[in-house]
Order: sequence, then C-alpha cells, then structure tokens
Amino acid sequence: MKSFHFLVLLSLALAFSFASAFDPSPLQDFCVAIPEPKNAVFVNGKFCKNPNLTVAEDFFFPGLNVPGNTGNRVGSNVTLVNVDKLFGLNTLGISLARLDFAPNDGLNPPHTHPRATEILVVVEGTLYFNIAKTNAVAFAGLSSQNPGVITIANAIFGPNPPINPDVLAKAFQLNNDEVVKLQKLFANA
Amino acid sequence: MKSFHFLVLLSLALAFSFASAFDPSPLQDFCVAIPEPKNAVFVNGKFCKNPNLTVAEDFFFPGLNVPGNTGNRVGSNVTLVNVDKLFGLNTLGISLARLDFAPNDGLNPPHTHPRATEILVVVEGTLYFNIAKTNAVAFAGLSSQNPGVITIANAIFGPNPPINPDVLAKAFQLNNDEVVKLQKLFANA
Amino acid sequence: MKSFHFLVLLSLALAFSFASAFDPSPLQDFCVAIPEPKNAVFVNGKFCKNPNLTVAEDFFFPGLNVPGNTGNRVGSNVTLVNVDKLFGLNTLGISLARLDFAPNDGLNPPHTHPRATEILVVVEGTLYFNIAKTNAVAFAGLSSQNPGVITIANAIFGPNPPINPDVLAKAFQLNNDEVVKLQKLFANA
Amino acid sequence: MKSFHFLVLLSLALAFSFASAFDPSPLQDFCVAIPEPKNAVFVNGKFCKNPNLTVAEDFFFPGLNVPGNTGNRVGSNVTLVNVDKLFGLNTLGISLARLDFAPNDGLNPPHTHPRATEILVVVEGTLYFNIAKTNAVAFAGLSSQNPGVITIANAIFGPNPPINPDVLAKAFQLNNDEVVKLQKLFANA
Amino acid sequence: MKSFHFLVLLSLALAFSFASAFDPSPLQDFCVAIPEPKNAVFVNGKFCKNPNLTVAEDFFFPGLNVPGNTGNRVGSNVTLVNVDKLFGLNTLGISLARLDFAPNDGLNPPHTHPRATEILVVVEGTLYFNIAKTNAVAFAGLSSQNPGVITIANAIFGPNPPINPDVLAKAFQLNNDEVVKLQKLFANA
Amino acid sequence: MKSFHFLVLLSLALAFSFASAFDPSPLQDFCVAIPEPKNAVFVNGKFCKNPNLTVAEDFFFPGLNVPGNTGNRVGSNVTLVNVDKLFGLNTLGISLARLDFAPNDGLNPPHTHPRATEILVVVEGTLYFNIAKTNAVAFAGLSSQNPGVITIANAIFGPNPPINPDVLAKAFQLNNDEVVKLQKLFANA
Repeated sequence: MKSFHFLVLLSLALAFSFASAFDPSPLQDFCVAIPEPKNAVFVNGKFCKNPNLTVAEDFFFPGLNVPGNTGNRVGSNVTLVNVDKLFGLNTLGISLARLDFAPNDGLNPPHTHPRATEILVVVEGTLYFNIAKTNAVAFAGLSSQNPGVITIANAIFGPNPPINPDVLAKAFQLNNDEVVKLQKLFANA
Repeated sequence: MKSFHFLVLLSLALAFSFASAFDPSPLQDFCVAIPEPKNAVFVNGKFCKNPNLTVAEDFFFPGLNVPGNTGNRVGSNVTLVNVDKLFGLNTLGISLARLDFAPNDGLNPPHTHPRATEILVVVEGTLYFNIAKTNAVAFAGLSSQNPGVITIANAIFGPNPPINPDVLAKAFQLNNDEVVKLQKLFANA
Repeated sequence: MKSFHFLVLLSLALAFSFASAFDPSPLQDFCVAIPEPKNAVFVNGKFCKNPNLTVAEDFFFPGLNVPGNTGNRVGSNVTLVNVDKLFGLNTLGISLARLDFAPNDGLNPPHTHPRATEILVVVEGTLYFNIAKTNAVAFAGLSSQNPGVITIANAIFGPNPPINPDVLAKAFQLNNDEVVKLQKLFANA
Repeated sequence: MKSFHFLVLLSLALAFSFASAFDPSPLQDFCVAIPEPKNAVFVNGKFCKNPNLTVAEDFFFPGLNVPGNTGNRVGSNVTLVNVDKLFGLNTLGISLARLDFAPNDGLNPPHTHPRATEILVVVEGTLYFNIAKTNAVAFAGLSSQNPGVITIANAIFGPNPPINPDVLAKAFQLNNDEVVKLQKLFANA
Repeated sequence: MKSFHFLVLLSLALAFSFASAFDPSPLQDFCVAIPEPKNAVFVNGKFCKNPNLTVAEDFFFPGLNVPGNTGNRVGSNVTLVNVDKLFGLNTLGISLARLDFAPNDGLNPPHTHPRATEILVVVEGTLYFNIAKTNAVAFAGLSSQNPGVITIANAIFGPNPPINPDVLAKAFQLNNDEVVKLQKLFANA
Repeated sequence: MKSFHFLVLLSLALAFSFASAFDPSPLQDFCVAIPEPKNAVFVNGKFCKNPNLTVAEDFFFPGLNVPGNTGNRVGSNVTLVNVDKLFGLNTLGISLARLDFAPNDGLNPPHTHPRATEILVVVEGTLYFNIAKTNAVAFAGLSSQNPGVITIANAIFGPNPPINPDVLAKAFQLNNDEVVKLQKLFANA
C-alpha cells in the first residue's frame, strides 16, 4: 500500500527560515543553456544556444526512476535536476530533486537552499522530522534553476582551508579539541 | 514495476510558450495566509496571521495519496495545492499539483499557467504528449503560490457571457453554426 | 472627427487573464542591444554594444505613421516595435505596437502575451470586442522589451509538426475530421 | 496629413538616465484597486475589491480624446492615467499618458519618472527635443501602475518648506538673490 | 589612529554563500510603516500610514553613536536598524546595522541573512576572520528592509521545542550525550 | 568626541523621491565580474570569471580609511565602491560609498541614484541638510551593484552637447543669457 504525503518543507528546514530568492524572468521564448566553455567568461545564469535549434529533448530528463544510493553515513541521497543537468531549465526559475532515504533513520541533514523555496511530496514511505523509518522516496520542487545547497555541518566543519578552530569553539560552545576532531571527520566527508 | 519519468513541462504546453511570472519575495520569516474576510478588502497576495501564531500544520497538506476522480470527459484530474488550500505557501513563490490520468487516452487538455513555470515528474505509468495509455500519476511543482490556469478550450468557448460568435468564427476559421455548437457544449462544462 | 478611446487590454484578452512577467531591472545606464551573431551563443535578453558608443538613434524608430497592411484573412495588422527592432529598448522593460484594423469586422484574434501586460489607446475609429466596424488605429504599450505573442488558434491548430489530432479532438469536443480540416487551414496561415 | 513618430523617450530625458523600477508581479487574476479609506492604513500599492465583483468598466478609461489644456507657462499638458484613475491597473505594472503640446515651443519640462521607463509615440505634429513648433499630441506607455514624476525645476526651487538657498546657490552656481527669486517664481507654480 | 577597512561580507559568511533575496519595488512615493495592530491581520511587509502625514523624522534614527554592549559570551553586539525600528525603511529595500566587538576575540558568530546581501565597513579597529583583537566597530548595509538572521549554532542547538537529538547526532557526527549537552547550553542562550 | 548619526537619506534627496530599482537575483554561488574587454560585447551587468577561480580578495576593497579630497567647488567628495571597483559585488545587489565633507558648508549637491535606495550613517562630524559645518565623514549603503548617479545641476547645465538653451530658459524661468552663463560654468565642471 502506498501513501503520498505532502509537506512544504522538511520540518527541520523550518529552523533555518525559508530561502527567498527569485530568479530573474525570461526575456525570450527559448534560452536553453549550453555547457560552459573552459577558461572562458561566464554570465549570471547561463549562456544559451541558438533558440532556433531548441528541441524537445532539451526539456526532458530520464532516469529519475532509478533509486539513489543511500549507502552512506547519513543514509540518504539527493538527485538534483538543476540547470547544469537539464539545460532547458535556463531562465525558467524552477528545478526538481528526487530524495531517497534508507530505512532505520535515513536522514537528509540540516541544510538551506540560498536561492529557492522548496516544496516536497513524499511518494513512498513516511518521513518524520526529516528521518525515515522505512525506505522513503520524495520529490521536491525548488523555485530556482539553480537553488544551491548549504549543508550546515559541512559548511561549518568541512571547508578547505578550514575555519579557525577558535571561532568555531566559541560559536558552538565546544572546546578546541572537539572542534579539531569534528574538522577531521568532516574534512573526509 | 514502477517507472519515474521527468519532464519540465507537459509536451503540449510547449506549443504555448512558458509562463513567466515570478512572485515578489517575502519580507519577513512568516506570513501564513488567512481566509479572506467576506465583503472586505483584499491585497496583492494574501493577508497573513500573526507570525507568532505560526504552527507546523500551516505547512502541511494531507491527502495527496488519494487518487483524483478521472471519471470525466477528458479522463484526467488535477489536485492543485496552492495558497488557497495551504496557507503556509503565502509569499513563498511555489505550489504543487497531483495529476491523475485515466487509461485509454486520459488527457490534461491544452492550458497555460499565467503566473508560473511548471516542472513535472511522472511517478506512475507513462505520459506521451499529455496522454496516458494506462493509469498515470504525476506531480508538478509550479513557481508561484497561485499559478492560475487558463484551459484554452474553456476560455474560448465556455465563458459566461459568451464571446461574440463572429469573433470566434473568424479567429478559428469555423462557421457560426460550428461556433454556437461548441459554445453550447462548453457552457455546460 | 477623431475619437481617442483608451482600454487597458483588448476586451477579448480579458478572457485569457493578464500576462504577468516583469523584465529584470537594468544594471547600468546604457545597454543597447546588438544583432545576434550567427552560430554563436546567446544570453537571457541581449548582448549590448559598448555603452560609450550609444547614440540618440538607438532610441528612435521611424515609420509608425505608415498604416499596416490589413489585407489578410482577419483584417488586422500588428506592427510590433520590440528589442529586436529597436535596440535601445534592451533592459528597459517596455515596448510598443501599432494596431491597424480594416473596416467591416477587422479582428485582432484571441492571443496572449506571455511576458507582458498590454495597455491600449484607440487613436482612430472604434473598437468593440476587438472588432472594428470602420478603419481603426490603436497604439499599445507592453511591459517587456520582448512581450512574445501566442495567437491561440495558430498555436493550437498551426504548429509544425502538428499536435496529435486525437488530443485536439478531445480537448475541443470536435471530431477528428474537423480537427484535421482546421490543421490544414492553419498550416497555411 | 498626419505623421506618427516614435521615440523611446523624450530626448531630454536621456540627460537624466532611464528610470528603472519594475512593479512586483500580480499574485491573482484580479486585484482591482479600491479608493483609499480616509484616516486609515495603506499598503505598498493598493487594496483591492473582491475579485468576484470585477467588471469590464474597471479596465476602461474614457475621455482621452479630449485635448489637455496647454494654456500654461510651459505650453504643455500631461493627462496621466495611472492606478489612481483607472483602478484596474492595480498589480499590472503599466500605465499610460496623453501629452498635449501648444504650438510655438510647447515644452514638457525636464523630469524623471522614479518608478517607470517611458515609451512614447507622437500621433500628431512633431516633437524635437521635447519642444513642439505646431500643435502636437503624443501617447506614452509607462512600466508601472504608478510611475511617479519629479519635475526637476519644481523639485529644486518649488518645495514647501523651501530648500536652504545656500545649498541651491552652491549647487547651481547661482548667487543667493537669484535663488530666492527662483524660489518665489516656483513657489507659485 | 583610525583605520577604515572595507569588506563585502564578514569572511566567515563566505562559508555559507551569499543571501540573495531582493525586496519588491515600491509602488508609491511614501509608504512609511505603522506599528502592527495587536490580534490583527498582517501583510507581506508592512501596512503604511497616510502618505500625506509623512515627516522627516520617519527617516531618521538617532543613537548609533552609542556602543553596543559586548559583555556577553561571544563578545560582540549587533544593533540592527530595520523596518521594525525605522518605519521609513518600508518598501525601500535597505537597512543598516552597527556591529561592536570586544577586544580579545570578540566574535560575531557564523550566521546567514535569508533575505539580504550584506556589505560591511570597519570604522574602528581591525577584524580578521570575524574576530577582533582590539575594540572594533563596523557598519553594515543590508539589501532588505528586514534581512532576517539565522545564527547557525542557535538555530541548530537552541530552538524550543528542540530538534530531535538523534538527527543532530547523525548530522554533526556527535554522540547523543554531546548533543544534549549542547542543547542545554544553547537553550539558555 | 565622536558622534555617530544615522539617516536613511540625505534630507535633500527627499525632494527627489526615492530611487527604486532592484537588481536581478544571482543565479549561482559566485559570479565575480571581470574587466570589460575592449571593442567587445557587453551584457546587462557584468561577465564573470570562472567561479572556481574565486578568491577572498575578490570581496575586499582596501583604502577607505583615506579621506577623499574635498578641495573642490562644493567641498565634498564621494568615493563610490561599486562593481566596477570591487568585482565581487557582481549579482549581489549592493554597494557602498564613503562621503567626505569639508568644514564651512561642504555640500553634496542634489542628486539621484536611478538604480538604488541609499542609507547613510554619519561617523564623524554633523550633517544638516546635506551641509557640514565641520569636517564630516559618512558611509552609505546602496541597494545596487551599480547605483548610478545623476547630479542634477550637471545633468541640466553640463552635458556635451548641451541642451537647447530655450528649453532650459523656459523650464527654469531663467532668461537665455542666464542659461548660457550657467552652461559655460558647468561645461568646465
């Protein structure tokens, strides 16, 4: 038996407020993105191919029926289909993701999307507080062609070069040894 | 066996170009819509309740696991979850819909969304040119809290009061009798 | 005797709701569009010429005193002055059109502008429900540098390749022969 | 003989750069403005009436065939049709103006629109550098429901209370007597 | 001796990407916010007072010469002047903050502003990686009337009701005891 | 003794209404501007360098501790740090300026920013009506990466080629000799 549930946002995300960027509007009928040239200039968004060469395939992305690999530390997987993968999304202000959760506490860890609001429908299993007890599959719509993602723990403890441990110790009320230990764990993440 | 497919937009919609409005950005953390008062003033968007009274349920909509009733002329059903149904969507620039298609040519007829781009994932069955041969279920994300919908045939032949038949005859290369017949059919739609 | 009337939108257009995109704001004083290079990349909107080379002529378009040719099936003509014709409009979020109507039911057929609101002033003759009994001339302002246009009947029955006739028959409550006949008529439009 | 000319902007306006605000997008099909209540609260834009009470007249403004009175110091008249006069413009991001110029140097003095780009078509007579040698009539589209206007000379020399004459003397390289004289002239404007 | 330095963003903020919301544009000359009524409705942004009652004081905020109290755990203080404090900011898309840092590692802990980009100028002392060795004062401009703030550590470990410790343990590679200890520390923050 | 004051806008600017453009949102994490190529094409905003080559220095601008030279006719100096000087500001919708005022009526003459709202904090001395009696220093945040500036007196009397003196005489209630004298003074400004 299947059960479809619907949430605007993973509950945990509420703790971080909603992201709130809105992409600029399109200025023509078609502006399908092209792969970025190496060693070259870029623009806000993407360069596009000749609109007369637009084909239906520019707006189609196969393979979302394949479950993502949840065999990792957090037991979850996000397959994001943004403008880098589906060129037709360029200038259209929307993208989509498939989320897979492993049973026994598969978790999509706390994160924010700096350029999009997310809306989520659970199509298999059940999610509670971002955690799945059984296999779960959800699909999310995001209000940007390129929502971005900031996974909090990785952004805090994982960057290279690392953030000064004194800063993190004071900010998180940890001692320096605890911070350095976490930085080692996330450096390999 | 299940098959998930993904399309940016129903193929037919391509014939009508993409909708391209983007909602204004939020100006505070919470602005959960309240039901409109009768005989009263309105604003662009929605009035909101006191943000201190925001609860998790404002962002949750149950029941999307229930199939829509496709026992109608076109053999399809759209369950739209916009800000009128899910008050938490207010100012967040996104909404969601469940689409059900009956087997044997269930069809979501040609339409546009004047205030949103649509992204669509097929979670059961197969869609081809907006038509399903078997049962099909899809979910769509839309880039507005209130995307609006203009079903072309209804907007042309169904409004009350009706559009002048001479206009429609000339525009659609039909004769007046054909137009009047269509207007009768759609007036009851 | 002349009579100037003013309408926000052609009456018929009301049946299709308002278009509602707004162009992104300019980011500099001058960004006059340049003709698109062949076989080359594009951007959302237009590339611009060196702002130091901006001249007054970039913002001037002559010839709107010449009536458009209304000797066609619908008895109307639209002369659109968008960024493709007047390069100075780039990034400015506005364009203009001259509309000519032949006497005896000259008609601007039902259409939408996916990226603009339209405002219209009748400067000669009278329009009623988008139809002119005498010669009529109107000017329209549109809130995009490139409003786009979707003429409904052409988009439904005229695309190449054509839309599956089964889809149109079901959507418009026509039989397949009627659809195929219309598709032939509009294929030559 | 009539001559229609077309300019993006009155030439003089070029000296002040383009205005560049874009109104927020609509969030529903209809949001017709209502007159502001006295002694009451306001919103960004306008409150709207119940959308179910929308009528065609909300989008129609008669009387633009009547020439404006150009019997004033500058020999010109602007009839602006913004959301304060035509309630249907609310949330639609566009407005319109009729401009009348008297012969012999009728002038629309240097001004800016802080919330709109302006596009202009000359429908009678000829304009050169914002000045008419004969009677002239133009229509302008503006990309906001409420473009605003800052007539430079009035804003500088005419406000009540007046700007400190020392400031204006220094800014405009005038002496204090010249400034005070101008302030008297514009105080009665 | 004074030294003014200038940074776009506190260095640490780079780890979290830039915030990217942009407020909707104003639709009139003045829309000065009014205090929200108790038990009443709200709008996206603020209700405004009668524009004819606008006074110069609506746009002035005194007291930014007074140092903020940095006698707290992190040794820093932020005095934010947003639309809740300075009503004239309503619809204008900008706000300002004074930041004070105590000597010996005064720290503004990692945070994001969900609705604004921040630009910062150091007017006294020196900041390095968000940390001050001596007294330091900075001013920041933020591109929203109400930027919002999410202090990461507080949002993760401090909310009431608390986030499920299992989620945080897994997300941050801590054990449950460590999480519960942090939750106690931040619950009192 | 120091005194920090805070104003949303220089008082005089109120006479000209608020500028009200808002930059389009970013569509990726980094889009650091690159210097414009000579004889080449441009875009709305700036081309960006490869985001993988982003460095911290792209977001840092030194030297704002150096007072601007106020030894000029108006006794003031504006050091604007926009995207042309600080490439990291590209797509971020904000910029900053240092304003220096000489004692004895140092004046920042009446001007508008066509693409930004300005917020201002006085960090040294006192400003009254845009005029300083003693040395004064202020910092301003502006809500665009490239706010633009129109100094009214220069835009009216200083452009090359000059505005027709008849226009200015009529608009400003001056005689032609007075206009020509002012045009000579500002032509050398």
